[in-house]
Amino acid sequence: MSLTVGSVRLDAKTVTRVLSRVTELRPRVHCLTNTVAQNVTANMLLAFGAIPSMAVHPDEVAAVAAGAGAILINLGTISSEGERAIPKLLEVARAQGKPLVLDPVFVELSPLRMRLAEDILRLPGIVVRGNASEMQALASLLAATPGATRITTGVIDRIEAPSGMFEIAHGHPWMTKVTGLGCASSALVAACCAVEPDFGLAAGAALSAFGIAGEIAAERCHGPGSFAMHLLDALASLDEATLLTRMG
Amino acid sequence: MSLTVGSVRLDAKTVTRVLSRVTELRPRVHCLTNTVAQNVTANMLLAFGAIPSMAVHPDEVAAVAAGAGAILINLGTISSEGERAIPKLLEVARAQGKPLVLDPVFVELSPLRMRLAEDILRLPGIVVRGNASEMQALASLLAATPGATRITTGVIDRIEAPSGMFEIAHGHPWMTKVTGLGCASSALVAACCAVEPDFGLAAGAALSAFGIAGEIAAERCHGPGSFAMHLLDALASLDEATLLTRMG
Amino acid sequence: MSLTVGSVRLDAKTVTRVLSRVTELRPRVHCLTNTVAQNVTANMLLAFGAIPSMAVHPDEVAAVAAGAGAILINLGTISSEGERAIPKLLEVARAQGKPLVLDPVFVELSPLRMRLAEDILRLPGIVVRGNASEMQALASLLAATPGATRITTGVIDRIEAPSGMFEIAHGHPWMTKVTGLGCASSALVAACCAVEPDFGLAAGAALSAFGIAGEIAAERCHGPGSFAMHLLDALASLDEATLLTRMG
Repeated sequence: MSLTVGSVRLDAKTVTRVLSRVTELRPRVHCLTNTVAQNVTANMLLAFGAIPSMAVHPDEVAAVAAGAGAILINLGTISSEGERAIPKLLEVARAQGKPLVLDPVFVELSPLRMRLAEDILRLPGIVVRGNASEMQALASLLAATPGATRITTGVIDRIEAPSGMFEIAHGHPWMTKVTGLGCASSALVAACCAVEPDFGLAAGAALSAFGIAGEIAAERCHGPGSFAMHLLDALASLDEATLLTRMG
Repeated sequence: MSLTVGSVRLDAKTVTRVLSRVTELRPRVHCLTNTVAQNVTANMLLAFGAIPSMAVHPDEVAAVAAGAGAILINLGTISSEGERAIPKLLEVARAQGKPLVLDPVFVELSPLRMRLAEDILRLPGIVVRGNASEMQALASLLAATPGATRITTGVIDRIEAPSGMFEIAHGHPWMTKVTGLGCASSALVAACCAVEPDFGLAAGAALSAFGIAGEIAAERCHGPGSFAMHLLDALASLDEATLLTRMG
Repeated sequence: MSLTVGSVRLDAKTVTRVLSRVTELRPRVHCLTNTVAQNVTANMLLAFGAIPSMAVHPDEVAAVAAGAGAILINLGTISSEGERAIPKLLEVARAQGKPLVLDPVFVELSPLRMRLAEDILRLPGIVVRGNASEMQALASLLAATPGATRITTGVIDRIEAPSGMFEIAHGHPWMTKVTGLGCASSALVAACCAVEPDFGLAAGAALSAFGIAGEIAAERCHGPGSFAMHLLDALASLDEATLLTRMG
């Protein structure tokens, strides 16, 4: 189920159009992300038709990110080196007008991450994806960030974008039982933002696809191990017919 | 098969009681662990009902670990940054009386890890889990560490705790064919120590559960790839009936 | 299908002989590799019968690598710390005459990686494995590197070794849809170089085995998630009969 208060209805056809553009254009998403989620994030991007790159060294991160279609900054397991890479990625995003998605993992537990998030949120047109605790911790900062796209994922994913509001009611509780899936969903949002300038719509397409793949995987799995495997398989084989059936 | 020379018998009922407390209290285990095993460790903790956190930056590691129920320090792929995080984690454990588990990966190969292990073993009430080579390398240090719980895993897991001695004869040779499973078992021990003050009993419950999940997975798998998947599935669905059947 | 212009024919019997030596001698491969591919690389080495070690700290990397049978340096997600570990690994390789495999991930995107590759390629007898873009970026450097073994993987894997040339036509397109499989193949090449002094033959055996395991996995899978699982299972159970059937 998808609702919108904006001008574009998020139906299976619209989602298919965004996903098709990803598989045609194969955008590279440069991910500065935590070492726990790097592998599953890269595999989800590949299953989605996008290409991951994950350089972190401050001496190369700008060169590698320069050719990417979008940038993801995820604050989980941030290192000193990753911390020094952040301003370089912000500069690439600013100079090239490249979409940048922030995933503020556990920001509510760490003053360091809160300080880094403050710096990152100064970027115009930023997209932020977190769970309820993380978005709550950033609420006052985000209120002072005009033009941001705010995505709060949970049982219902809520997307607040300049172009309108979407709610996505797909997914499955198993998705909270595999590490890094929230992180991976932020990367899929970034992949869609690389090919769709309406970031609310881009996020809606990414999260609808991810949630529907999760529903399919949940029907096939016997636990979190097989769920993760079926999720990748389902994401790689999503087509318009499946989206039509699931989005009603 | 489980034997004990201590006062508490390690039967299915006792193991179930410890595991149930994990799924009810959902302790967070803060893991400073190697980058090879981070993902499988986080997934095993989630399948077990616990919650992983893995911050490593010296400027945030104390803040993130402060709210955890237990701490794991694993010396595999230790970085300079991880090295600087260790004293901060020891301070949190000492100040809050929090359980701390050391996993001395390949300590016999590295003078650096031996030196770090020496520092860590000064913590009162520490729990150490390693294989025979690792525990042998630490033997003289451990002999001078009163109150430590020593766990040597292998075909038979041997637990020497202040409260008594346990031997666990569960598991399967496939468990040595998937990277990071020893590391993950140390994290499960930490999760049980967060909810059970008798660390020998806690370790016995964690290793019995893990070993039995390994036996079930071995019966279902066709190689190390499917073994890893079935292990996660089996761990997530362990119940008292299964433990009763397997523990005889 | 395997062709050779050198003196040794790469048939199932030859490949089996190299693989058997790996499972008998169980060489340890010390991998300085990217954090995205560490886990799958370690699991592939274990499935192959070899043993992974992955220390990176400059204060221990030489001690840990000293007992290994071969060394892998992979430039993906290189850190400052990894950068400082490289000269120490080169020194171990040089002093002990140990095989060293370079995997120049995305070298064409990063001046830093190009500079590091230049340093590494000064090692006599080095083995380099990359895709077409990476090997093209290194072409002029490699032309000035006598005695190097050059491996360009793709639909057809091309091995140019001092002892002759091999072409391997095994594998499956799914192999490009799972992150880290190219990286893992470099580690398998290193494992074979640890037991077979003809590095062209060693690389041919490793890539034939890996490609054939990929073909088997592709026949069993339903997408990239199940492909990765079946690939590990197939690699762990490869035997001479299977190689004979597949190598014609």
